[in-house]
Amino acid sequence: MARRMARRTARRTARKNALYAQSGGVTAVINATACAVIETARRSKKSIGKVLAGRNGIIGALTEDLIDTSKESSSAIAALRHTPGGAFGSCRYKLKTLEENRAEYERLMQVFKAHEIGYFFYNGGGDSQDTTHKVSQLSKSMGYPITCIGIPKTVDNDLPLTDNCPGFGSVAKYVAVSTREAGLDVASMCESSTRVFVLEVMGRHAGWIAAAAGLAKQQPRDPPHVILFPEIAFDKSRFLDKVKRTVERQGYCVIVASEGARYGDGTFLADAGSVDAFGHTQLGGVAPSLVNIIKEAHGYKCHWSVADYLQRSARHIASATDVEQAYAVGRAAVEFALAGKNAIMPTIVRGSGKRYRWWIGEAPLDKVANVEKKMPRNHISRDGFSISERARRYLAPLVAGEDYPPFKGGLPQYARLKNETVTKKLPSFAVPR
Amino acid sequence: MARRMARRTARRTARKNALYAQSGGVTAVINATACAVIETARRSKKSIGKVLAGRNGIIGALTEDLIDTSKESSSAIAALRHTPGGAFGSCRYKLKTLEENRAEYERLMQVFKAHEIGYFFYNGGGDSQDTTHKVSQLSKSMGYPITCIGIPKTVDNDLPLTDNCPGFGSVAKYVAVSTREAGLDVASMCESSTRVFVLEVMGRHAGWIAAAAGLAKQQPRDPPHVILFPEIAFDKSRFLDKVKRTVERQGYCVIVASEGARYGDGTFLADAGSVDAFGHTQLGGVAPSLVNIIKEAHGYKCHWSVADYLQRSARHIASATDVEQAYAVGRAAVEFALAGKNAIMPTIVRGSGKRYRWWIGEAPLDKVANVEKKMPRNHISRDGFSISERARRYLAPLVAGEDYPPFKGGLPQYARLKNETVTKKLPSFAVPR
Repeated sequence: MARRMARRTARRTARKNALYAQSGGVTAVINATACAVIETARRSKKSIGKVLAGRNGIIGALTEDLIDTSKESSSAIAALRHTPGGAFGSCRYKLKTLEENRAEYERLMQVFKAHEIGYFFYNGGGDSQDTTHKVSQLSKSMGYPITCIGIPKTVDNDLPLTDNCPGFGSVAKYVAVSTREAGLDVASMCESSTRVFVLEVMGRHAGWIAAAAGLAKQQPRDPPHVILFPEIAFDKSRFLDKVKRTVERQGYCVIVASEGARYGDGTFLADAGSVDAFGHTQLGGVAPSLVNIIKEAHGYKCHWSVADYLQRSARHIASATDVEQAYAVGRAAVEFALAGKNAIMPTIVRGSGKRYRWWIGEAPLDKVANVEKKMPRNHISRDGFSISERARRYLAPLVAGEDYPPFKGGLPQYARLKNETVTKKLPSFAVPR
Repeated sequence: MARRMARRTARRTARKNALYAQSGGVTAVINATACAVIETARRSKKSIGKVLAGRNGIIGALTEDLIDTSKESSSAIAALRHTPGGAFGSCRYKLKTLEENRAEYERLMQVFKAHEIGYFFYNGGGDSQDTTHKVSQLSKSMGYPITCIGIPKTVDNDLPLTDNCPGFGSVAKYVAVSTREAGLDVASMCESSTRVFVLEVMGRHAGWIAAAAGLAKQQPRDPPHVILFPEIAFDKSRFLDKVKRTVERQGYCVIVASEGARYGDGTFLADAGSVDAFGHTQLGGVAPSLVNIIKEAHGYKCHWSVADYLQRSARHIASATDVEQAYAVGRAAVEFALAGKNAIMPTIVRGSGKRYRWWIGEAPLDKVANVEKKMPRNHISRDGFSISERARRYLAPLVAGEDYPPFKGGLPQYARLKNETVTKKLPSFAVPR
């Protein structure tokens, strides 16, 4: 009896809690990753105590606003797999360098210590991998060991060292499906009404999302007829020529434009002028800008759509491949941590061969941070207005498969968590806003 | 043998071809109606010969540009049931009054005679029902009998005498699903980023589509927090107050705005200034206009989306109820014609009682034409910013059920018709453009 008690105490002290936080723009499948982290941790009770979640991401970690996910039922956690958005809240908040704001890192360490956190799972894009890397370095230098695992997430698909990023496949599928559907609409109407349709999609610096629209094309005359990538300098007269030729030949023209489409001098087609917390210019309005250009030059009747958040939250049309991969990187993150790995990010590795195969690999965080993977030139057609066969081969498997959420009364049923707060133990800490 | 030949000849002369034409903005389910018309006619070979389709709607009928649907396989026709857009092309072309342009009506009669057309099925909104009615009157006065049946279609849901319009249920479902999904996205981000999200939806004069967003709300604090209807005069200061209070209480605010939202004096929030073929002002840009108003007053970070054609072509998230009803009105149109009825439109009738039941009724065309059914005031909440329980009861069954198209390689597979042209028999005819 006494021996059993001793064993239990030993286990309890060896066991550490985990902190999971979501970062940056959310996706249709980031909660599938959260689901995997929590489910895998729950199966590893010997090593991992509770999974705490930062409310609104790293801001919650800094302000000690932590959610106790152990209060959620297993069915609520399971429902995260089919729920879009960020279930614990996310944020656009980038930690400065250690030199610039050491206080923030030290505060993180205090929170980790106060809540017996030994595992840090940070689910985000390039900036978040950078933060995870810094926390890992600091944890070494401060002598308080934290296992730091970054988990990839970004609709922009711009992280290096991973074949693709969870979140991208679903937005790609949304954009390809929407382009095919809206294309049929415009084709029906072009004889007497709309000639040109412009769909604006996300992708600030990389054209992956716009490229995915290319999957809608089955035959040469199918939409999309023009794709505008941030990687290809916008040439107004070549663009207007291409639109005119397409309308004259096909009767109509469907254009998919990346929000990051820009002129040769780097000026965005539509620069809203405001700047987000990461210092990136906030964009919007490429579609209406293009429509103005086209109307002025050719006088065609145009329609336009800006997909914005609809594209990255459209869990109802998520890619099954993407959902599986989002789950797999979350599970792998916990498994890597339990295997004693540190300062890495699970990656998605693509097998060679015609049939699509993938598995989980790993990349050191310092190699991932702050590197943006743009579309290679050979993924874009010669004229710069569509995707190459190589891009098609790359993109096609990522949108494969449907994974419908459950519906009730015609609407998808998404998880509602209790999100109970953990009792605070530390003095308050102000986060600069 | 001779008797059998005689019978055959008699049958052949009694048998007439049918003309089917799509009109106005297409929907996710107008092809389901086309499918029903053609399939029902094919089962009625004794009375109906071929179903010809006007290429690009009534313009094809006037220019004798007719499609022979008998050249399509039964599987191609069956695939129309799950294909968005208008498979034979549609148009925005309104016939003038008989007095203003009798030549057009006489031309229609010539085309009908030349191609032995005895049935005219015109699938559209209010303007089209008006045209169908005029053709029916003319056919009587000219002594060439044409059975004229109008078939309802409009995403705007603004036809009178029918409980709802095929096409509406699917756009309603799209808007409700998208609002719920984008709402989860904004809720995740609001702590440090986007506070306000505006989704602009269709509905020039009637707020039915915007109203459908209200179905996304399950609990009082859920999005949408503000709906802007064309029926309620836009009051800038009340609106800004409501947005501010919502952000202060909930942390964020989701707004769904009808493209027809307008000030008390009738000025649209965003008047693009151009006019379509029916003389209606073409709208667009309510969402960015609202965002400017909000940013200026409150400084909140905003995101906005314009769904435009995506909403009415989104067959991938069609309402099963809508698909069934779109099919049912097409079948009923042919059955009514075969039963000797004329100058009517099949309607959807809702049963009383808690459980939703519906069946097909009929309405005389002269009662349908040119009447717009707006949202009744008791469908809108007292403060004018949301829907009432009565509206919710009305709307909920219309979005019920999913009817996914077949997918291949992650993308929906839609019908591709041959659309072979019937040989012309008449001199050409110019349609004013």
